[in-house]
Amino acid sequence: MSHLVIVGGSDAGISAALRARELDTRVQITMIVEDAFPNYSICGLPFYLSGEVPDYHQLAHRTREEITGAGIDLLLDHTAQAIGPEAHHVTVVDGAKQTQQIAYDRLILATGAKSRRPLIGGMDLPGVFPLHTMESSFQMQHYLQASSPRSALIIGGGYIGLEMADALTRRGLSVTLIEHGASVLKTVDPSLGTLVQAELWRQGVAVHTGIQVQQIATQQEHLCVSGTGGFEAHADIVLVAVGVEPRAELAQAIGAELGTQGAVRVSRTMATSVPDVFAAGDCVETWHRVLQGPTYLPLGTTAHKQGRIAGETVVGGERLFAGTLGTQVVKVFDLAIARTGLREHEARAAGFDPLTIEGTYLDHKVYYPGAQTVHLRLTADRRTGRLLGAQMVGSVQTEVAKRIDTLATALFHTMTVEALSDLDLSYTPPLGSPWDLMQMCAQQWSQTNVHREQQTERRA
Amino acid sequence: MSHLVIVGGSDAGISAALRARELDTRVQITMIVEDAFPNYSICGLPFYLSGEVPDYHQLAHRTREEITGAGIDLLLDHTAQAIGPEAHHVTVVDGAKQTQQIAYDRLILATGAKSRRPLIGGMDLPGVFPLHTMESSFQMQHYLQASSPRSALIIGGGYIGLEMADALTRRGLSVTLIEHGASVLKTVDPSLGTLVQAELWRQGVAVHTGIQVQQIATQQEHLCVSGTGGFEAHADIVLVAVGVEPRAELAQAIGAELGTQGAVRVSRTMATSVPDVFAAGDCVETWHRVLQGPTYLPLGTTAHKQGRIAGETVVGGERLFAGTLGTQVVKVFDLAIARTGLREHEARAAGFDPLTIEGTYLDHKVYYPGAQTVHLRLTADRRTGRLLGAQMVGSVQTEVAKRIDTLATALFHTMTVEALSDLDLSYTPPLGSPWDLMQMCAQQWSQTNVHREQQTERRA
Repeated sequence: MSHLVIVGGSDAGISAALRARELDTRVQITMIVEDAFPNYSICGLPFYLSGEVPDYHQLAHRTREEITGAGIDLLLDHTAQAIGPEAHHVTVVDGAKQTQQIAYDRLILATGAKSRRPLIGGMDLPGVFPLHTMESSFQMQHYLQASSPRSALIIGGGYIGLEMADALTRRGLSVTLIEHGASVLKTVDPSLGTLVQAELWRQGVAVHTGIQVQQIATQQEHLCVSGTGGFEAHADIVLVAVGVEPRAELAQAIGAELGTQGAVRVSRTMATSVPDVFAAGDCVETWHRVLQGPTYLPLGTTAHKQGRIAGETVVGGERLFAGTLGTQVVKVFDLAIARTGLREHEARAAGFDPLTIEGTYLDHKVYYPGAQTVHLRLTADRRTGRLLGAQMVGSVQTEVAKRIDTLATALFHTMTVEALSDLDLSYTPPLGSPWDLMQMCAQQWSQTNVHREQQTERRA
Repeated sequence: MSHLVIVGGSDAGISAALRARELDTRVQITMIVEDAFPNYSICGLPFYLSGEVPDYHQLAHRTREEITGAGIDLLLDHTAQAIGPEAHHVTVVDGAKQTQQIAYDRLILATGAKSRRPLIGGMDLPGVFPLHTMESSFQMQHYLQASSPRSALIIGGGYIGLEMADALTRRGLSVTLIEHGASVLKTVDPSLGTLVQAELWRQGVAVHTGIQVQQIATQQEHLCVSGTGGFEAHADIVLVAVGVEPRAELAQAIGAELGTQGAVRVSRTMATSVPDVFAAGDCVETWHRVLQGPTYLPLGTTAHKQGRIAGETVVGGERLFAGTLGTQVVKVFDLAIARTGLREHEARAAGFDPLTIEGTYLDHKVYYPGAQTVHLRLTADRRTGRLLGAQMVGSVQTEVAKRIDTLATALFHTMTVEALSDLDLSYTPPLGSPWDLMQMCAQQWSQTNVHREQQTERRA
């Protein structure tokens, strides 16, 4: 392989380029980036808009010089328009509308995802914003500075919606959040979502669930958002954050097989169905380690891992992507909400016989000052005792993010709930308890399961 | 089995009793406790002496009523004096010097450890204290209240010594700490111990290393501590914390096999070499999961786990103790210091070919306010790439304790350093980075090892 071309300069693309370079100092690497911001932390945008990150340049994981210094040729403000899979070239157009063809030996598509655009009226009104790219953030930042809005309405109670509720409240706006589901943060169970809602209310965010937004309109100087059940609210700015979808058009145009939710189907070495074309990150299907099959789960961590695998594959490596567990955490005001693996309904749909235990524990020994509650839901298979997933909510001081990492590592190794008590975890009274709270919950799970078995036997 | 007798009412004893009760509702359980404080958190004593825990009763993991309510008969202020292994009875003496014999079907020894008493003069002077039991804490608390000492000298820079330096500083005393090794906290490598020393100095603790204390004497109204190299310091109170040793006398007297450092030798079901006599906790040898052999590593977490296994064994269970990794964490002022597995010299002694990488990382993305450094040392085997151990130091906000738990879980599963990058860990900019710092360090380890291999090949 002499020329590697990568379309996309975010997490997956950069990881692929750096890994290929690390393993092969001779390969030529060209990266086609449609804006001027390679390797920016998209996950950091809410903190830029909150004012916590004063300068957007800080969001760069690496400077442009660090990237080119690693021997990666950057074509900024260049859009890949088409691929010639037989001829092995990519047609690229630059900002001056000049078109050129770039030949590749191997091609990695890391085109990412885009914000889903809901089918409601008024999406293009001034003051209505999506949030996914650097460009859309700049537009919003400009509007926030120029128009000094006093109120914001956020459509969508997922990660971005919640982080932006936090960000805009911090910025002094009065925030209303609308979620069409029964509780916010659909990635965790409703009992935990409800805790997040309570925190939002406590911080002054008005939360309305079970509402399908139907229309955004201008009314005098405000935007008016109306929805099912006669819902109506006014705001100076509206943020639409109802999820993302894969950008798979380039791959689709060359006949690459697509999978779940229209994402590019890839092997565990990140190969598409088209020879010499690979793909990674938010544009592809992700192999799930518990499901042992593909799913669509766009996350930055996964994009990094898949990019690294793709970068290894194209220079001759044979490493397999180990799979996602869907491990994720979000900070919303003073709460951290984390999960890994499957929730009960996902586990049931996958053919498991799940039992979920929810417990409330203190993050450290009660006698040491400052102990706070952590809510943990542990899901495991009744028949085998195998751990299937966990969800956790606690204040950011309760180390919820890293506790979920331990469970993710346990899940990676297909541990049983019983075996969690065998793990030799750290303890000091200010930071934990002799049995970590996850072990206490595991022991409670085992007892409940035994009890259920006994009851079932008696009935039988 | 109809009568289970347990000698000792701390972590191992209580865990054994509760587990036996959980699995067998009919077994009679008698617990012989030499003081009036069953199931107290000995690990919490420094926080009682610091004043952070105002009432020592708060240190009880469970109330006496909770223990007896679980059907465990408590014989408080009773000392087990001898065991009749043939007759299956324990000779017990109570506070009124009354002796009785208690018959057992199975016996669990959970007699714990005691403070090591160094061979220096002046150990019995007023104002000189060890710290291990509730009783010794009460004596020290009384002295602190009655004599209002203004300065303290601590002999020993291990966990207890460091926690007490923190505690007594918090209480307003001027503290000097003497360690005979080259750096404090010998459980981590000197480069990390040095960071702990810097924190002690920053907090006003005078630290002197490389000094062997030779004598404690009274000089006017003070205590004078002298040591090698002409060292001399005065203080109003002296705390001696130079480690612990197993209390194995009862077991030894019946011919039970002893092992490392005089601890009772046990199987992985916690059986001693004497029929129907089991042992667990700080009085026994601990099976080490990486060494695949016995060691002496008295820790509360291990005592709980071994007790649980012993409780299961005596009622007919066959579960094996999964082994210790020596996972531990201590909070010293604003620092948390954690480790798991082997250090380089331990790994080499065990026949591995270890390489250790030390890196400094930020606990979360640099652009989000409040990022702080974490120092990580990762040790793995050069030939196999197998992870062998890790040590970490960071402020208590950097989630060091729970990060080490993830590495402990990886170690539990015999992961390679390479595979650490496959772990699907959580990420949000305020709490981490897309590759967790342990994955960054792992990647650095792999590169260094490859580099070394290449150099070796070139030389060969």
